[in-house]
Amino acid sequence: MSNTKLVLLRHGQSEWNKKNLFTGWRDIKLSKEGKIEAIQAGKMLNNFNFKFDYAYTSVLKRAIYTLWFVLKELNQLWIPVKKTWRLNERHYGSLQGMNKKQILKKFGKEQVQKWRRSFTTQPPLLSIDDPKWERFDSKYAKLDDYQLPLSESLSTTLKRVIYIWKNDISPKIINGERILIVAHGNSLRALVKYIENINDKDIVNLNIPTGSPIIFEFNNQLKFQKKYYLNDI
Amino acid sequence: MSNTKLVLLRHGQSEWNKKNLFTGWRDIKLSKEGKIEAIQAGKMLNNFNFKFDYAYTSVLKRAIYTLWFVLKELNQLWIPVKKTWRLNERHYGSLQGMNKKQILKKFGKEQVQKWRRSFTTQPPLLSIDDPKWERFDSKYAKLDDYQLPLSESLSTTLKRVIYIWKNDISPKIINGERILIVAHGNSLRALVKYIENINDKDIVNLNIPTGSPIIFEFNNQLKFQKKYYLNDI
Repeated sequence: MSNTKLVLLRHGQSEWNKKNLFTGWRDIKLSKEGKIEAIQAGKMLNNFNFKFDYAYTSVLKRAIYTLWFVLKELNQLWIPVKKTWRLNERHYGSLQGMNKKQILKKFGKEQVQKWRRSFTTQPPLLSIDDPKWERFDSKYAKLDDYQLPLSESLSTTLKRVIYIWKNDISPKIINGERILIVAHGNSLRALVKYIENINDKDIVNLNIPTGSPIIFEFNNQLKFQKKYYLNDI
Repeated sequence: MSNTKLVLLRHGQSEWNKKNLFTGWRDIKLSKEGKIEAIQAGKMLNNFNFKFDYAYTSVLKRAIYTLWFVLKELNQLWIPVKKTWRLNERHYGSLQGMNKKQILKKFGKEQVQKWRRSFTTQPPLLSIDDPKWERFDSKYAKLDDYQLPLSESLSTTLKRVIYIWKNDISPKIINGERILIVAHGNSLRALVKYIENINDKDIVNLNIPTGSPIIFEFNNQLKFQKKYYLNDI
């Protein structure tokens, strides 16, 4: 039996990526460049004749639009799509909406690098009465308070991402289903850490580029066989 | 407790609507006018401040694109969407792809009117070795042969539409969830016939306009209370 392929794709550039702001769970649309990245990713997957049985994405529009552009290019609009908060970007707490350069100036390079890349460091928490907390966003109305973070480390992000991986996505892969996941820099880093068993120190150096499909191949025991970027073929 | 609203929307004009061809299950995209209709429908729903908990559509791209345009206008991309063949347009058998005027000339007005509007008349069947039969389309690969029609009357269309209504959609409405269904002229006629209990004779005269949201209000016993077009408010 041939390997089953899983495709991971980070959304194209958003308006806030462009403005160099911390985004996290804030629901910011794609920039013009981000749309083009999404369409290009779709064209690339189509050129390699990718077919999917199922797609996953977050509840954030930069990921959903990216997925839509890809499905359009693939002419596979009809495939089932699950949108889940578990694939959202890491929550950046009270840094969300703030300028990365200004934060750098204020807190220094070392601290910011920890917030951005370390496995366990959590950015400063949102206050529970902050009107920008997602508790007050109807998207998350069905979640319990304890599920809604005020800030997340990569480690806590990993827990929620792996929950859906174990309970929903990986059983489908074992079943031979071809899955596309369109998500975010840190939710994908968490997933890649888990799949490749990357240690807490080395994960600091892993960065996932926007709009660039990553292929993972698994055997039918869900043993990871190889990984490559479609750009590199 | 206030009534729960259900919104039905027929997709915007497709390329084949425009060319006056029988479409049925053939997967034809929206025309330029159809896109505008979809966007207008979305704007109208947004002006009336509609919020949805769940959306349903068919696996045909003219309906899916219409839904996407609406969700974009509503800024509700994140809501769960189920795409199901059970909401597909009625299958027009061997008439699919044929010009309505030519068919009219060949078979006469009475026969064509029967095929188009009567409750029980089935258009001529596709042959099972016709390469255009959906058996050979990967979208329907998971369906059993017996589920795939070679042609459908409104009566057989109704059976598959009501299956998803009973098992999936109506329990959500009873639960107070606000549902949007974007589908097709005949799958919606079937649903409206069932909800309003329209008899087999009167259903001949019901036509559902494209891109025009229809609101149904139900009490929490799923008793139908009223129906109106958003255009008419």
